[in-house]
Amino acid sequence: MTNDFDIYERRESAARSYCRSFPTTFVKAQGSEMTDADGNTYIDFLAGCSSLNYGHNDPDMKSALIDHITADGIAHGLDMHTDAKAAFLTAYEEKILKPRGMDYKIMMTGPTGTNAVEAAMKLARKVTGRRNIISFTNGFHGMTMGSLSLTGNIGKRNGAGGGHLGDVTHLPYEHSMGEGVDTLQFIEAMLNNSSSGVDAPAAFIFEPVQGEGGLNAASDEWMQGVAKLAKEHGALLIVDDIQSGCGRTGTYFAFEKAGIEPDMITQAKSLSGFGLPFAALLIKPEHDIWKPAEHNGTFRGNTHAFVTGRVAIEKFWSDNAFQDELAAKSTVLTTALQEIADLIPGARLKGRGLMQGVDVGSGELASKICARAFEKGLIIETSGADDEVVKVLAALTIKDETFRKGLGLLLDATRDVLETNKIAAE
Amino acid sequence: MTNDFDIYERRESAARSYCRSFPTTFVKAQGSEMTDADGNTYIDFLAGCSSLNYGHNDPDMKSALIDHITADGIAHGLDMHTDAKAAFLTAYEEKILKPRGMDYKIMMTGPTGTNAVEAAMKLARKVTGRRNIISFTNGFHGMTMGSLSLTGNIGKRNGAGGGHLGDVTHLPYEHSMGEGVDTLQFIEAMLNNSSSGVDAPAAFIFEPVQGEGGLNAASDEWMQGVAKLAKEHGALLIVDDIQSGCGRTGTYFAFEKAGIEPDMITQAKSLSGFGLPFAALLIKPEHDIWKPAEHNGTFRGNTHAFVTGRVAIEKFWSDNAFQDELAAKSTVLTTALQEIADLIPGARLKGRGLMQGVDVGSGELASKICARAFEKGLIIETSGADDEVVKVLAALTIKDETFRKGLGLLLDATRDVLETNKIAAE
Amino acid sequence: MTNDFDIYERRESAARSYCRSFPTTFVKAQGSEMTDADGNTYIDFLAGCSSLNYGHNDPDMKSALIDHITADGIAHGLDMHTDAKAAFLTAYEEKILKPRGMDYKIMMTGPTGTNAVEAAMKLARKVTGRRNIISFTNGFHGMTMGSLSLTGNIGKRNGAGGGHLGDVTHLPYEHSMGEGVDTLQFIEAMLNNSSSGVDAPAAFIFEPVQGEGGLNAASDEWMQGVAKLAKEHGALLIVDDIQSGCGRTGTYFAFEKAGIEPDMITQAKSLSGFGLPFAALLIKPEHDIWKPAEHNGTFRGNTHAFVTGRVAIEKFWSDNAFQDELAAKSTVLTTALQEIADLIPGARLKGRGLMQGVDVGSGELASKICARAFEKGLIIETSGADDEVVKVLAALTIKDETFRKGLGLLLDATRDVLETNKIAAE
Amino acid sequence: MTNDFDIYERRESAARSYCRSFPTTFVKAQGSEMTDADGNTYIDFLAGCSSLNYGHNDPDMKSALIDHITADGIAHGLDMHTDAKAAFLTAYEEKILKPRGMDYKIMMTGPTGTNAVEAAMKLARKVTGRRNIISFTNGFHGMTMGSLSLTGNIGKRNGAGGGHLGDVTHLPYEHSMGEGVDTLQFIEAMLNNSSSGVDAPAAFIFEPVQGEGGLNAASDEWMQGVAKLAKEHGALLIVDDIQSGCGRTGTYFAFEKAGIEPDMITQAKSLSGFGLPFAALLIKPEHDIWKPAEHNGTFRGNTHAFVTGRVAIEKFWSDNAFQDELAAKSTVLTTALQEIADLIPGARLKGRGLMQGVDVGSGELASKICARAFEKGLIIETSGADDEVVKVLAALTIKDETFRKGLGLLLDATRDVLETNKIAAE
Repeated sequence: MTNDFDIYERRESAARSYCRSFPTTFVKAQGSEMTDADGNTYIDFLAGCSSLNYGHNDPDMKSALIDHITADGIAHGLDMHTDAKAAFLTAYEEKILKPRGMDYKIMMTGPTGTNAVEAAMKLARKVTGRRNIISFTNGFHGMTMGSLSLTGNIGKRNGAGGGHLGDVTHLPYEHSMGEGVDTLQFIEAMLNNSSSGVDAPAAFIFEPVQGEGGLNAASDEWMQGVAKLAKEHGALLIVDDIQSGCGRTGTYFAFEKAGIEPDMITQAKSLSGFGLPFAALLIKPEHDIWKPAEHNGTFRGNTHAFVTGRVAIEKFWSDNAFQDELAAKSTVLTTALQEIADLIPGARLKGRGLMQGVDVGSGELASKICARAFEKGLIIETSGADDEVVKVLAALTIKDETFRKGLGLLLDATRDVLETNKIAAE
Repeated sequence: MTNDFDIYERRESAARSYCRSFPTTFVKAQGSEMTDADGNTYIDFLAGCSSLNYGHNDPDMKSALIDHITADGIAHGLDMHTDAKAAFLTAYEEKILKPRGMDYKIMMTGPTGTNAVEAAMKLARKVTGRRNIISFTNGFHGMTMGSLSLTGNIGKRNGAGGGHLGDVTHLPYEHSMGEGVDTLQFIEAMLNNSSSGVDAPAAFIFEPVQGEGGLNAASDEWMQGVAKLAKEHGALLIVDDIQSGCGRTGTYFAFEKAGIEPDMITQAKSLSGFGLPFAALLIKPEHDIWKPAEHNGTFRGNTHAFVTGRVAIEKFWSDNAFQDELAAKSTVLTTALQEIADLIPGARLKGRGLMQGVDVGSGELASKICARAFEKGLIIETSGADDEVVKVLAALTIKDETFRKGLGLLLDATRDVLETNKIAAE
Repeated sequence: MTNDFDIYERRESAARSYCRSFPTTFVKAQGSEMTDADGNTYIDFLAGCSSLNYGHNDPDMKSALIDHITADGIAHGLDMHTDAKAAFLTAYEEKILKPRGMDYKIMMTGPTGTNAVEAAMKLARKVTGRRNIISFTNGFHGMTMGSLSLTGNIGKRNGAGGGHLGDVTHLPYEHSMGEGVDTLQFIEAMLNNSSSGVDAPAAFIFEPVQGEGGLNAASDEWMQGVAKLAKEHGALLIVDDIQSGCGRTGTYFAFEKAGIEPDMITQAKSLSGFGLPFAALLIKPEHDIWKPAEHNGTFRGNTHAFVTGRVAIEKFWSDNAFQDELAAKSTVLTTALQEIADLIPGARLKGRGLMQGVDVGSGELASKICARAFEKGLIIETSGADDEVVKVLAALTIKDETFRKGLGLLLDATRDVLETNKIAAE
Repeated sequence: MTNDFDIYERRESAARSYCRSFPTTFVKAQGSEMTDADGNTYIDFLAGCSSLNYGHNDPDMKSALIDHITADGIAHGLDMHTDAKAAFLTAYEEKILKPRGMDYKIMMTGPTGTNAVEAAMKLARKVTGRRNIISFTNGFHGMTMGSLSLTGNIGKRNGAGGGHLGDVTHLPYEHSMGEGVDTLQFIEAMLNNSSSGVDAPAAFIFEPVQGEGGLNAASDEWMQGVAKLAKEHGALLIVDDIQSGCGRTGTYFAFEKAGIEPDMITQAKSLSGFGLPFAALLIKPEHDIWKPAEHNGTFRGNTHAFVTGRVAIEKFWSDNAFQDELAAKSTVLTTALQEIADLIPGARLKGRGLMQGVDVGSGELASKICARAFEKGLIIETSGADDEVVKVLAALTIKDETFRKGLGLLLDATRDVLETNKIAAE
């Protein structure tokens, strides 16, 4: 395999994106390291945008998957019953739902986050008989027309080519109007005014930490406030935990500490544990009014993902050990990022748990830092409306040594860029 | 593994569907046979709704996939360059595009058919600056809000819960207004009348053979007519080849014989060859105006699917041998189905190639036949607005013996049901 | 008063239109004649687009109105009770509803046709809980966003500037697909196919004769067919009788002979009898579920129009004499138009009653004929998707002599234009 | 004429409303007094909801109108040139536009406020190529689907029966989030955040004083702020001056003192001066890109209203005398309303000029006061999201004596109700 990009130029659509930031051909990956065609190794602080929370090719999932395939296990069975699905559901019930006192039905939607979001939107409208859904500034929920209507980013919205992105009211996320402004109070005022023009909502949908929107982390109080408003206004509460879930913020679900009880929860990204396409919608039983196949799809419930997803649950979530590790790692991350932030006037930390980053004030600076980091062997990306946040999404399983090494590379890259900028300014 | 359904009852959403028709737990599958937890073996005439055109666990794809995983090949790499992607693209270019004189960019959309359809809709609107898209009666294009707006089925549309399904004009598919009626003429009249209220279309989208809509097969002339109308009216032509493609109707693309040149082609289902989630949108280069990441998604370009999809292309589409086999098998199928149709007054054959079935006149009868077939060891489903078509979607690779055996079971099941009905009527 | 157009150029919006076809300043009008600032007199075959069915300044209405104003009668009273309104309602009940065995509530909408149409759309959706409304090719129902969504004309639709014109299915009006095609059968097929993508309709709305769409006149059978379909599909039947009503086609309502019972009927244009802004929506009592002021407006029930409208009803509709006259005049009109049509290869008569015209095959020719007619002292306009119909909308009260004179001018104008064209072609 | 309500019960739609508050039949009106069928006289503090700013049957307008009708002046001429229109336009140019240094094209829309609003919305979208329009909490702009989408009131919105009210972003009007909250800052934050989900606006539309929304009066600074935001974001500024215009707030246009230059201004209500249906849209010349008849309508430019409207302009707006009177009257009003407010704990004055009222804290109390006032011979109504404001809309021409008498009745009515409430509470 030579590192030749002609085929992409010739045949892949201009929509491709990450390959532009990381211009090499990857051939292998283990844990938190990726290797390219030229034999270079990179530390991965992107982790498939939080789809590889347990790292690349986890050995236990890998062997379970190989065993499954070797034994001619079902690869595709539509949504028929399979041993793999039963085992996944059982593990999910035992290790995830029961210990948290949660009672949810699991809907195997098409294996993409956006499909889970679309299913949630449709169901919320069916359940309430209302059309309006409230989403939040800087929210990102997907690219299909329903999810895109919830998404704030203008660049993404323009992708609709003028298609209808309505039936959604976009309201301000916590802290989005300046630190002093209580956005909950604002939302409440709009909803309580019968002449506000904001129609009664079918649902509220929010991300506990906004992954694409700049690592904005909602406080427990804000999440509780939204939950309360939803209840008061007869709306369902949908938590989009696609990027923030599966341990990313320190607990399995990112809203656990807030003590809220969403009516629906979307999951995807790291749900398979192995990076395989997989998504699910958790639904409170009383809202599970779907007719059979009313929302269907060919790839509902990726069977290979059931296999690896089950291992992920059993391996990492059978007790509190993993969660405790995450707390320790989060502290390491905060400390390291603060050191970087201290180099840049006005910079500040964003996010929570292992979903943290530094708002460096401009997209240009953040992009330069990430580009320089890649030259140094670190895969890392930006986030935010203007790409102004350097975002660390390391695997949750990253070894301490690797983690510190990667953070060191990031610090070095930042220093390099600041130095270069300084020279250029002189 | 015991064949126990409690976990599904307890935890899986009511939206689940195929498991209701085939109430058993499958544990293994090879070629055209599936085995359940009790050791029963079934002939598979459903083939993952055309997602398993090359059968279950094809040995060559299987070994390539195991090799890839064993070697810590990339499982998830967002849309970064990987050796697996390069190899897939190269094979696709060499074996699929070049021999057919086709020039397309390939967009790795989210790995579901509906995502490819949504991307096509958005791009058509961007390219033309128009909003209206013309789709056809009995068309099925997916469950996310954009694709659902194109879909005709009232049950599926109701799933939107009152969400907006507009910006689409639904016009009659060939033969849908009765055999004598020229639907192209009707469509032309609507489009040429500047006061028809049908706004200038961004695109036409149709399935060459309607998989869910009842195996309605468009003639070459009708497809050519739609292509001509699209061109005359400045609209893009999108062919949804998700179910009908990958050899299902006898050629790789279902529209090949019609000689049309779609502006975009959606692919999914059997594209991975192995039943793995995978979808792509083919785009004529001049329309590939996406900005990087303007339509993005976490699971674009399932890497495992690149591996198996490449093998599928190389194994089955390097020469004409496979296509010749399909022609022979289609004849077998037609003959067998005619025998069944002859048993039922008014019944008629539908479809094309290995995408054929019998319209038995009522959903009730078709469902009974399928249920009885399952008791006899055959997995088969219905299709059509009222489920009135018994649809055969065997793997294209099914062995002659298995194929004939399955068709025999279907004939027997039909006879059983007709006999039972006769007795009941007496 | 000089005939000076500067003030219009300087101050009136470019949206103005009729003044472009008739470039003079009118200062006086009586019966079927209009006089301009230069003292020229014109025969009026436009009649305010059917808003002056009883001619200009009918002496009885005029004196009643002057009396009302002189006595300080209410000019504007919102929708409070007034003697003028009571008298109008009483006359309407006695002379219009009772003799026809009709039982309707009368809603005083804003005094424009489009407002009555919007009220009907809203009410139909409220009553049925459905959103889709079926309107017809070449239909014209008004320029506000609701009515515009029903309107077929592309030029008018473009006026929306990309605003949402959805929730409407445009289906073919009678004869619009060619003389041999049964459009009812087509509509029925679309509605009976549960996978057609045409959502269950809240209402059907049609004009018995399409005034702007080219004087297409629906047969009694077609109207009955639509009424039947509406009933079968749980949809309301709305007849838009704004241009075709008040005697224009030979009976008070244009659908009387068809024997159908619409759920709602829109009226405007000649309802005041005097050309004053006035509109109403007739509603079957069981559908009158409006809450007070749920659809309101400042000018509901123009009081001056109550005065003149009452006189119009009492004067013309107390017995059958007027209707008999109309039949006679219609025959005169048909004969004269046939003479014109005979001059033009391919020309054909359109319309019904005193709402007839000649389709001369091209908008260019029709416009030339109307322009030449104006030079000769006749006010007349075109109609149709491409302005291809020369449309006669004389006052129903036009004196025979004036009528024949006007028709003579039209014949002469046609001959002139044909002669000029002939010379140009040589 | 007997005061008999049977005909209304029998024949008028349940949508009727004002007649429910004032259950009598009016037969005559002069200046600020209305007389009913029983000979009772009422002082009119409603003035046709600001449609009768110059009182009922102003003698000069009355005689001009009678002269016009007597002379067979045009009553209806579609939008042809007439002497009456030319005279109106000339007066408007000379007395309204020129003295204020304003340069606008005048579009004669259909003769209702909602039609002018719809025309403005359509034109703003055409001019900018954008779809989103920003309107404000408690705004009221009309009942047709476009205008209704701008309107905040939930009761009115429900009238749409589920029809599409999208393509509008409802943002908070000044003071609507509590006195301390700077709503402009909020709006700016939403617009400047490229990921807010608020699409780039085609226009902002607001009422300088919200007539139906509770007499909320925007400060000059707020209006300037909105104007600035519109300019910065490439959006048009539409001022809906339908209820607040024609002198109602103390100047001809309600925004004059703010010194803003709207791109479009809607006028209706008192534009005819006489209560006749009439509306117009003022358009900055550079935005007047309408094609002829692109927004049309039968009753554009009510000719009778041209006659009275011209007299109104010449009589009241030829110099500053009238405006000075308004200032004096406003002071009288403020003083009297303060006396009333002082009776009610928490009550506060709302509005500006002769568009003032008292927020009495509850709709129930306000309604009781208005009902009691009517018993005493005063016609007055409530306003506000919950009808909590007692709103005085006297004619601007009301005689001092009548004004004081009416205000006295209102004070008495308030005292009566408070007394009764007090007794009931004991």
